[in-house]
Amino acid sequence: MTTTPPDVIRCAYAELIVSDLKTSREFYVDILGLVVTYEDDEAVYLRAFEEYLHHSLIIRKGAEPALSVLAYRVRGEAELDVAEAYYRELGVEVRRVPAGTTRGIGEAVRVVDPLGFPIEFFYEAEHVERFTQRYDVHGPGALARLDHFNVNTPDVPAARKYYEGLGFRVSEDIVDDEGTVYAAWMFRKPTVHDVALTGGAGPRLHHIAFATHERHQILHICDHLGAVRKSDQIERGPGRHGVSNAFYLYVRDPDGHRIEIYTHDYYTGDPDNPVISWDVHDNQRRDWWGNPVVPSWYTEASRVLDLDGKLQPVEERTETKEMDVTIGADGFSYTRAAGAEQGFKLGEQV
Amino acid sequence: MTTTPPDVIRCAYAELIVSDLKTSREFYVDILGLVVTYEDDEAVYLRAFEEYLHHSLIIRKGAEPALSVLAYRVRGEAELDVAEAYYRELGVEVRRVPAGTTRGIGEAVRVVDPLGFPIEFFYEAEHVERFTQRYDVHGPGALARLDHFNVNTPDVPAARKYYEGLGFRVSEDIVDDEGTVYAAWMFRKPTVHDVALTGGAGPRLHHIAFATHERHQILHICDHLGAVRKSDQIERGPGRHGVSNAFYLYVRDPDGHRIEIYTHDYYTGDPDNPVISWDVHDNQRRDWWGNPVVPSWYTEASRVLDLDGKLQPVEERTETKEMDVTIGADGFSYTRAAGAEQGFKLGEQV
Amino acid sequence: MTTTPPDVIRCAYAELIVSDLKTSREFYVDILGLVVTYEDDEAVYLRAFEEYLHHSLIIRKGAEPALSVLAYRVRGEAELDVAEAYYRELGVEVRRVPAGTTRGIGEAVRVVDPLGFPIEFFYEAEHVERFTQRYDVHGPGALARLDHFNVNTPDVPAARKYYEGLGFRVSEDIVDDEGTVYAAWMFRKPTVHDVALTGGAGPRLHHIAFATHERHQILHICDHLGAVRKSDQIERGPGRHGVSNAFYLYVRDPDGHRIEIYTHDYYTGDPDNPVISWDVHDNQRRDWWGNPVVPSWYTEASRVLDLDGKLQPVEERTETKEMDVTIGADGFSYTRAAGAEQGFKLGEQV
Amino acid sequence: MTTTPPDVIRCAYAELIVSDLKTSREFYVDILGLVVTYEDDEAVYLRAFEEYLHHSLIIRKGAEPALSVLAYRVRGEAELDVAEAYYRELGVEVRRVPAGTTRGIGEAVRVVDPLGFPIEFFYEAEHVERFTQRYDVHGPGALARLDHFNVNTPDVPAARKYYEGLGFRVSEDIVDDEGTVYAAWMFRKPTVHDVALTGGAGPRLHHIAFATHERHQILHICDHLGAVRKSDQIERGPGRHGVSNAFYLYVRDPDGHRIEIYTHDYYTGDPDNPVISWDVHDNQRRDWWGNPVVPSWYTEASRVLDLDGKLQPVEERTETKEMDVTIGADGFSYTRAAGAEQGFKLGEQV
Repeated sequence: MTTTPPDVIRCAYAELIVSDLKTSREFYVDILGLVVTYEDDEAVYLRAFEEYLHHSLIIRKGAEPALSVLAYRVRGEAELDVAEAYYRELGVEVRRVPAGTTRGIGEAVRVVDPLGFPIEFFYEAEHVERFTQRYDVHGPGALARLDHFNVNTPDVPAARKYYEGLGFRVSEDIVDDEGTVYAAWMFRKPTVHDVALTGGAGPRLHHIAFATHERHQILHICDHLGAVRKSDQIERGPGRHGVSNAFYLYVRDPDGHRIEIYTHDYYTGDPDNPVISWDVHDNQRRDWWGNPVVPSWYTEASRVLDLDGKLQPVEERTETKEMDVTIGADGFSYTRAAGAEQGFKLGEQV
Repeated sequence: MTTTPPDVIRCAYAELIVSDLKTSREFYVDILGLVVTYEDDEAVYLRAFEEYLHHSLIIRKGAEPALSVLAYRVRGEAELDVAEAYYRELGVEVRRVPAGTTRGIGEAVRVVDPLGFPIEFFYEAEHVERFTQRYDVHGPGALARLDHFNVNTPDVPAARKYYEGLGFRVSEDIVDDEGTVYAAWMFRKPTVHDVALTGGAGPRLHHIAFATHERHQILHICDHLGAVRKSDQIERGPGRHGVSNAFYLYVRDPDGHRIEIYTHDYYTGDPDNPVISWDVHDNQRRDWWGNPVVPSWYTEASRVLDLDGKLQPVEERTETKEMDVTIGADGFSYTRAAGAEQGFKLGEQV
Repeated sequence: MTTTPPDVIRCAYAELIVSDLKTSREFYVDILGLVVTYEDDEAVYLRAFEEYLHHSLIIRKGAEPALSVLAYRVRGEAELDVAEAYYRELGVEVRRVPAGTTRGIGEAVRVVDPLGFPIEFFYEAEHVERFTQRYDVHGPGALARLDHFNVNTPDVPAARKYYEGLGFRVSEDIVDDEGTVYAAWMFRKPTVHDVALTGGAGPRLHHIAFATHERHQILHICDHLGAVRKSDQIERGPGRHGVSNAFYLYVRDPDGHRIEIYTHDYYTGDPDNPVISWDVHDNQRRDWWGNPVVPSWYTEASRVLDLDGKLQPVEERTETKEMDVTIGADGFSYTRAAGAEQGFKLGEQV
Repeated sequence: MTTTPPDVIRCAYAELIVSDLKTSREFYVDILGLVVTYEDDEAVYLRAFEEYLHHSLIIRKGAEPALSVLAYRVRGEAELDVAEAYYRELGVEVRRVPAGTTRGIGEAVRVVDPLGFPIEFFYEAEHVERFTQRYDVHGPGALARLDHFNVNTPDVPAARKYYEGLGFRVSEDIVDDEGTVYAAWMFRKPTVHDVALTGGAGPRLHHIAFATHERHQILHICDHLGAVRKSDQIERGPGRHGVSNAFYLYVRDPDGHRIEIYTHDYYTGDPDNPVISWDVHDNQRRDWWGNPVVPSWYTEASRVLDLDGKLQPVEERTETKEMDVTIGADGFSYTRAAGAEQGFKLGEQV
């Protein structure tokens, strides 16, 4: 591949299909505190407190829960032509869509990437008020900005190679002595990642993550879910990741889409930023405090749509699965049936 | 019983028998950051940063790990006679010991209380520097003061009645519809508790707890244990308790003695402070965020000594055990073998 | 004086006369986040998140801003007779008022204490929901409970003697080499204070204080005031007190009544709790970080009413004033005219 | 100017000349908690906990306190030639120095930039252990990384133009209605700044800033300075900046060099990041809470050396000074003589 890739700035927004807009809005607005830029009967456009583009998350009413778009912002309008040429050469499906196809977003290039995900590249977007200092509307769990996407893909080395071709660099990964790669964290903006590649049946969306400034903001989200008796939506955490060093929490939205709340990773912007490789048998790689990972975190994920809104088929991972290696190996057996009780609709295909 | 009980101010100190003083000192001083008031080849006398009595914890070298003393401070020297009379009327073993029997502590009354625990009452104690504002020596996980004891006892209602006789009041408890009482939190100083009574084989010490001012101090202790690759000593948490509302962490010392780090319970000092009763089936009673309780937390505890330093026999709980009711009932099955790997020596009698 | 004083538990509520109920409500409810228990056209009854009595603060519409009641809770209904007898022997004005005289409060004894303050003693009070775990309604600056009152009085030693007679103990004070006492902190509940006595023209209310659990909650109140462009209502802080070790912030309500937000003092409940005496020339006594105290903090305070709602006359302090000793002595000169710009109505008598 | 500027990644290190290495080491290591990479009798090489290059700060023994180097890292070794050509065309003094001229740093280009500052460009540097997860050695005020430089220069518009030529973009500035520019914040890495240009007599170094993750870490540094009775080294803050939204603290080292501790600014990496212009009369621009700026913060700064180690002459600002506009205009008069008491040696030339 000799064609130049588009100059990606960062991960920019996701669109999730939800089964009940009202219930999902309660989760994202009343509990997570995201700001509504615009809403109608079909969708709610949301952003975090320090964002000035129209949205970083869209929840859209649909037939079944899924991911419909992962969008990356490119450095300028000219990068759209670059992106179009790049993906045409890759031989995947490519569409150029006019400004406004997604509300608030300018002209864009949409592709089904080689991993099977519906990806959009855009530069132009409507600017809205940045609420950085609107402390009068910040809640105790204020989210600052979208941080990253995490996707399940059966072949992590292939996915990593694809993303390196797109100009992403690896900050950290999880491997074993046989050379099996279980996961890789890759970035364009100088944080630990814009996208993480997690080995598993795919293409599926593992989670999208929002960043806060401090950890007490994450703890409040837990307290809030407890107060409204929705603690079952807390899937994993809070905890400290070994990988990325970030303090984390995973919650599940009413359809089971997974959202991470995340803070305190580190600067990666220098060209020689050291890559950290974690041994899959290191019990502190996923949780620095050694707390066990709930199996649903390994097995459940959101299905993704193609450019026509149809579910993409899911391919199993053929290499060793991280869960199989590490549950048992480090002395844990852990089953939480709460997800089923909540009627989470996702991940049944696993 | 018509005799007046001694006027207890608060829980004051504990003495733990440890198998290796050097290893235990590393845990309590290097990791938990307690201040050493005095140490010799036999024992280390420790206090937290806001304490001005000689110690709130003694770790003493001994043949096998156990609890040797739980001490309550009384309101004045005259209360020693009151205590002596009170326990003689109760018919338990009572000893009057002269000042200095325990370094730093004045004359005291020691008893084996009706629950089988070695209890000491004292008033006089050596004053040492209060390090409240010695921020130059505070670590990132600074402990402010001893907060409470938690003991396992097979008959919680009987134990509660005994402590009510001693002038303690209940702040919260865990019950079921059949009237079984699984645990009770009781206090003299106006916090949620000086002592918690937890149903289980007893007499055994479940844990002693130290308070911090803020939650980040508790999170640091986790991070620190991760950094020195001792995350297996993190048994449970961090989390938010339903009962007490406190933010908590349970760690295990090198012998398996359990220490809680605790913050943010509430004022209970008014006479009409409302008692909160939790349903044993409420999945948020033990963890407000619904995270499962590790079985070792229910089953393992420290043996206790009598006044001659011999192990007290342990009696099983005959009433329904909380773990049996709630694991399964709320959809969790959870096994962590890490404790065994660490060679924790306690609780095998369960 | 041989009569027994009433057994006071703690400071319990204050009533402030405000000139505009709507504007004051915005401050106390929208910015400070207090919970409204009841309100009508005359008054708003407020409490903090961990309080279960009907109110800890009343703001009442009135002709001119003032303090109308400082209320202490006593240990039981029988203490009302004790209080009545005690103050009759003191020779001050005493009134017994029936339950409901103040909404939510039972029968009470009201006096003008020897310092000239309108003081109420009560035990019975209406219970309301304790919002400790109602994290869904906690704001980012959640106040937990009323902590203390601070009053200006010209003769601190006499005031201290009066409060010692009432059973309060001193935790800390500020003195000089000549024996002048500038301030004293006195408590019943085991914190640093229920009431602080600050030398100055009096009787005047210097401030009432609410406690939070963590410091970030106090910082948020500053950020919030900045966001609504009311930073001029921040009079002093945030900072760390030398005295009490607490982290503090002083804000002024729309009438100039001063509210402190306060966290992290220490346990004082043992009988031998060491008293800390600060030298008035110690630049870290008022602010541990050495930041200067704004003169308005020394000179401005709220007038108080007698039992008939008339302004009590104010007597000047004849002893040396702390501000005169310390401004200049430690090298600071500081004038902030912002108060005047805000039209603060209080303190002009100074 | 048509020559291409070197591709600067970020601000990378500073070297400060100090009069007493031992005293300065105590400040930077014992109080601020920086990690010593290397030290000898002449200099101490320091880094923060998340840095993996050899140092981000050097303190070097010298005749009189001054700044000797501000270093920017460039994207690769080839940028050195670019830098050399760029500055030769600018007509300023340029020197190419071999690897090891500064310990731990590869080959470099040194210039006296058009503003009069001694600037170094380098790419190669020795890697050392990144202490991100070495929580066992993190103190309660752990510094994560160098964040930015702030320099005084008499002609801010000219300086801004120079830095724009070097590829820096403006995130925020302070202006008035007449078009006078008082300060500008400029960045390469996607934070608010790598360098701030503050109007004043120059060339002088106003401060260098280190970032923490959370605000409590900054508050601890204040508490620590209070504990060792060095609160006079706290010059300004803690507070929240209007500009940058960061939480800040300014401390002065034993020679008077100013260090900022800083956290929570925001992502600026998108090409259309909105520039925020603050009115110089906005009382919340410098402190969001409206607290006054101490005059020393406006007037005192560190002298800078030329490439031969001689003091650069200082030129006064001819345009209106921010302090003259805003002190008085917003109602404050504030004098803190503490600096003089501390014997700060810098800034006397102002």
